[in-house]
Amino acid sequence: MNILELMENISAPSPVKVIVLAIDGLGGLPDPDTGKTELESARTPNMDRLAFEGSCGLMDPIRPGITPGSLPGHLAIFGFDPLNYTIGRGAMEAIGTNFDLQAEDIVARGNFATINKENIILDRRAGRITTEIAMGLCQLLDGMEIEGVKLIVRPVNDYRFIVVFRGEGLASGVSDSDPQQNGLAPRKIMPLNVPAEKTAKIANKFIAKARIVLNKHHPANMILLRGFSKRPQFPSMTEIYKIKIAAISTFPMYRGLASLVGIEILDTGPSLEDEFVTLEKYYPDYNFVFLHIKQVDTAGEDGDFGRKTKLIEEVDQLLGKVIKLNPGVIVVTSDHSTPATMALHSWHPVPVIIRSKLSRADKLNKFSESTCLRGGLGKFPAIYLMPLIMAHAQKLGKFGA
Amino acid sequence: MNILELMENISAPSPVKVIVLAIDGLGGLPDPDTGKTELESARTPNMDRLAFEGSCGLMDPIRPGITPGSLPGHLAIFGFDPLNYTIGRGAMEAIGTNFDLQAEDIVARGNFATINKENIILDRRAGRITTEIAMGLCQLLDGMEIEGVKLIVRPVNDYRFIVVFRGEGLASGVSDSDPQQNGLAPRKIMPLNVPAEKTAKIANKFIAKARIVLNKHHPANMILLRGFSKRPQFPSMTEIYKIKIAAISTFPMYRGLASLVGIEILDTGPSLEDEFVTLEKYYPDYNFVFLHIKQVDTAGEDGDFGRKTKLIEEVDQLLGKVIKLNPGVIVVTSDHSTPATMALHSWHPVPVIIRSKLSRADKLNKFSESTCLRGGLGKFPAIYLMPLIMAHAQKLGKFGA
Repeated sequence: MNILELMENISAPSPVKVIVLAIDGLGGLPDPDTGKTELESARTPNMDRLAFEGSCGLMDPIRPGITPGSLPGHLAIFGFDPLNYTIGRGAMEAIGTNFDLQAEDIVARGNFATINKENIILDRRAGRITTEIAMGLCQLLDGMEIEGVKLIVRPVNDYRFIVVFRGEGLASGVSDSDPQQNGLAPRKIMPLNVPAEKTAKIANKFIAKARIVLNKHHPANMILLRGFSKRPQFPSMTEIYKIKIAAISTFPMYRGLASLVGIEILDTGPSLEDEFVTLEKYYPDYNFVFLHIKQVDTAGEDGDFGRKTKLIEEVDQLLGKVIKLNPGVIVVTSDHSTPATMALHSWHPVPVIIRSKLSRADKLNKFSESTCLRGGLGKFPAIYLMPLIMAHAQKLGKFGA
Repeated sequence: MNILELMENISAPSPVKVIVLAIDGLGGLPDPDTGKTELESARTPNMDRLAFEGSCGLMDPIRPGITPGSLPGHLAIFGFDPLNYTIGRGAMEAIGTNFDLQAEDIVARGNFATINKENIILDRRAGRITTEIAMGLCQLLDGMEIEGVKLIVRPVNDYRFIVVFRGEGLASGVSDSDPQQNGLAPRKIMPLNVPAEKTAKIANKFIAKARIVLNKHHPANMILLRGFSKRPQFPSMTEIYKIKIAAISTFPMYRGLASLVGIEILDTGPSLEDEFVTLEKYYPDYNFVFLHIKQVDTAGEDGDFGRKTKLIEEVDQLLGKVIKLNPGVIVVTSDHSTPATMALHSWHPVPVIIRSKLSRADKLNKFSESTCLRGGLGKFPAIYLMPLIMAHAQKLGKFGA
């Protein structure tokens, strides 16, 4: 029995409310000058109070040493082991833009590319054209219909786009046209099984038409497609956990992923404060809310230690609103570390607090990577966060007699 | 390779003796007035001495956040992952009463229930009749023979009983008659595959006969059956670990489970002291003994913080006898937490000590949930307790050349 099956067996409704504050990229590494991480450098009285009253620990997002992309990181927090619940490359990009992928759609990841007259790829990324240019090119390609199949083309960023095949009799089992290196010709897309024959044929026709349309748009005079896939069919968290669950996020990828696992997405404004106002507004209607904060991760990826620290302080102030709502369970954590000193996502474990009247209080005097190491939750894989939250919210029955 | 296969490969006899004191429901939560758990409140000089001399840690019985029933909790301590070694509902109840289930028996869990003239279930629990009344009704139903199959009916507690089908050509793959809610008719039992056809037929005949027998015994005028299953075929610990292993327990469920995994059950009296006297008596004959204490869990489930604390102190005094026997390895631990403040089993991790001349001494000055968090064993899944004990008893060879 896997952990999701177990959850489905033993979860049961309870009136206890839960708010999870997921601060993207929260974990960090010390500033060489001060020896303190971003979180250790920030003044965070609200988080410190929760760390004192709650149980703390450190989570490995995927496995020790594995740096998560944004999708697997959040998937783990939602309780889905990212090594078992995989998402095709095309579907990943579609979710990343929060495109409303239908169950029968086939989606591929596309690159604008440069080819020469001999059909040899000179640059798989078309000189890294800007998103603005790519948006215009996508409009040229969007809306074709080939043998009754509609083709939807949407920009992602820079030279990247997605193409969605919508119609009857399609299947995802086709090869890539992208040979993944320069100096080769684009490959003909081949069906990998009989049901995928129509998809391969239409994809090849689409590429031929695109080549004509793009002929005068050097360096973006060709497209390369890969990762043909469908919307993954993941179990719904609403059904597994029997909770009315919502998420607040400004990040399209997060919104796409959350809806994929059966979480309702609430409308919110672009600022930090907007998200907390949204939380206050919808709090009465749900018994489980994820509040996702993207800005801290962005500052980390920009390598801006000071801005990341300051943003953590702003989030801490807004956390006061969550404490005032007084839900039965408050969780503060993250999907992965983004040390400003690395300006990248990293594998370092992330700190977590679970504060409820059923937590064994750790009485830590500060919320940080180093203090959480001494917390009662110990170090654990992120897929156990949901079982732990559900337990503290008294939403789980006993396993076995 | 799973951990049991690994154990079977590398375990080898050694003269080192092991005593494991399994204090059911030992882990707790703080009393809101004192901020101390039951274990922290108890005076436990013997446990404290072992915690000073041994290695300590905290165990997750099943997975983080999962509250174990008594069966899975002990199964994990015996080294069997309860998510992989599952037990059918009928078999679980039979083990719970320590019924001597044979390998070919089929057993179902039964409820006495109330139906009206239209065959609609008014109460799935027959007004929660007492065990005494149920015992009399079980006698009325016990001992029938249908098509050469003998039916054995035994009370469990309150309105619960088991029915054992003993004979040729039986199989467990049949549906339940219990629809699991009031207001519906009992379901006809259906075979889920060809080998189970005879079982379904006999079960339906038995229910029809039981209905006639119970006709005048309102509110218990019907039976509902579910969870048809066989005695699980678990590997024997004697064979896996190559040890002569015994258990002492007053709790029928524990005795049933221990014999299921190849542990010999020693006769003992009902008191705490009786169990330790039994240990002293049989100690020379075995090289591995589990001593199981039920009373601490019962006090926790009763929500009696003071009694639980006092019982821990009594166990600590009797632990002096174990220390005097001076086995090579002494282990003190538990199958799960039962905080008196919750009056329920809980998911909170449980403290553990392993004291042997090969333990890295943690020099903790008290045995408790919070001190064990700083112990050298760290936080680990309970299925690794047996490997750790076997290692400290020098009963495990090296893995790999």
